[in-house]
Amino acid sequence: MKELEDAIKNKGQVLPGNILKVNSFLNHQIDPTLMYEIGKEFVKRFADDNITKVITVESSGIAPAVMTGLVLGVPVIFARKKKPSTLNDAAYSADVYSYTKQKTNRIFIEKKFISPNDNVLIIDDFLANGEATKGMIKIVKAAQAHLVGVGIVIEKSFQPGADWITNHGIHLESLARIASLNDNEVTFKKD
Amino acid sequence: MKELEDAIKNKGQVLPGNILKVNSFLNHQIDPTLMYEIGKEFVKRFADDNITKVITVESSGIAPAVMTGLVLGVPVIFARKKKPSTLNDAAYSADVYSYTKQKTNRIFIEKKFISPNDNVLIIDDFLANGEATKGMIKIVKAAQAHLVGVGIVIEKSFQPGADWITNHGIHLESLARIASLNDNEVTFKKD
Repeated sequence: MKELEDAIKNKGQVLPGNILKVNSFLNHQIDPTLMYEIGKEFVKRFADDNITKVITVESSGIAPAVMTGLVLGVPVIFARKKKPSTLNDAAYSADVYSYTKQKTNRIFIEKKFISPNDNVLIIDDFLANGEATKGMIKIVKAAQAHLVGVGIVIEKSFQPGADWITNHGIHLESLARIASLNDNEVTFKKD
Repeated sequence: MKELEDAIKNKGQVLPGNILKVNSFLNHQIDPTLMYEIGKEFVKRFADDNITKVITVESSGIAPAVMTGLVLGVPVIFARKKKPSTLNDAAYSADVYSYTKQKTNRIFIEKKFISPNDNVLIIDDFLANGEATKGMIKIVKAAQAHLVGVGIVIEKSFQPGADWITNHGIHLESLARIASLNDNEVTFKKD
């Protein structure tokens, strides 16, 4: 997606440790107009899938997910990283290891929000090792819902998450695919 | 706002301890269409204020804030409850005590995202004791930006936050104002 690649090139910053800092438009400051275009693009790429629910994980997945839900006119669920005091009903959970933070978070989605009749699209801001995505896939399976696919804003194609998803026969659409962040420069993967 | 009051009445649930559970459309599952209407309503209520930035706190404030930003065409910043590894630049911070969780979180906004030229609208999902709002006000003041006002989705008018804000001469707009949650029933405040 050209607009997104332009934003990454012009506003992103490469930090040591293969970190791409995009907090001026994606995960701290948000560009809502770009998020809306991202939502439209996801809807186009999963146009034939009759999506009934969009799920993501708090916090940075919420903006692209909610725009996708707005375009589709379907509910969006964000998995909680902590079980809130009001989440006293039955919940699906999965453990998600964060390599960046070097710790495991359990994520939760209340059971009543996903049913076997749902066609679920998973959305997230980043795909690197794929741990958060795997956690959400586990929850969709536990709910016996149909997984339509995974929509990612920025994929780090040099890390194992993307291959894991496609090797499992899951439809993956990443709007920007990064081949490398070597020499402080963003190189996009060619199609 | 009638649509919001209807959603609270039809989908909200009153729990012991004056807790209103609205996680089927606001803070776990999100109704994106309602959020967009909420965004339009905030823009209408602060129509003359030339807003340049919307700020909120992760996670539940993000959906209403990003829709407000979409309607206005301005950036949205969500304050982080933890300092991310990529937030190595100078940041404003404020301590926010959560009565629900009985603990203090420090919230962070990177300094470069708010300037003295900004007209800032603060958005949040709930206003009860007002601690999160006070934290954001402190950050807006530290940045020497102009505070346009505070937009709240659901105000618990029987708790002290709303009075504190208006007593400080700050323009407060709450789209649903709850007078009481007694006897497991939601009673809205009359205008």
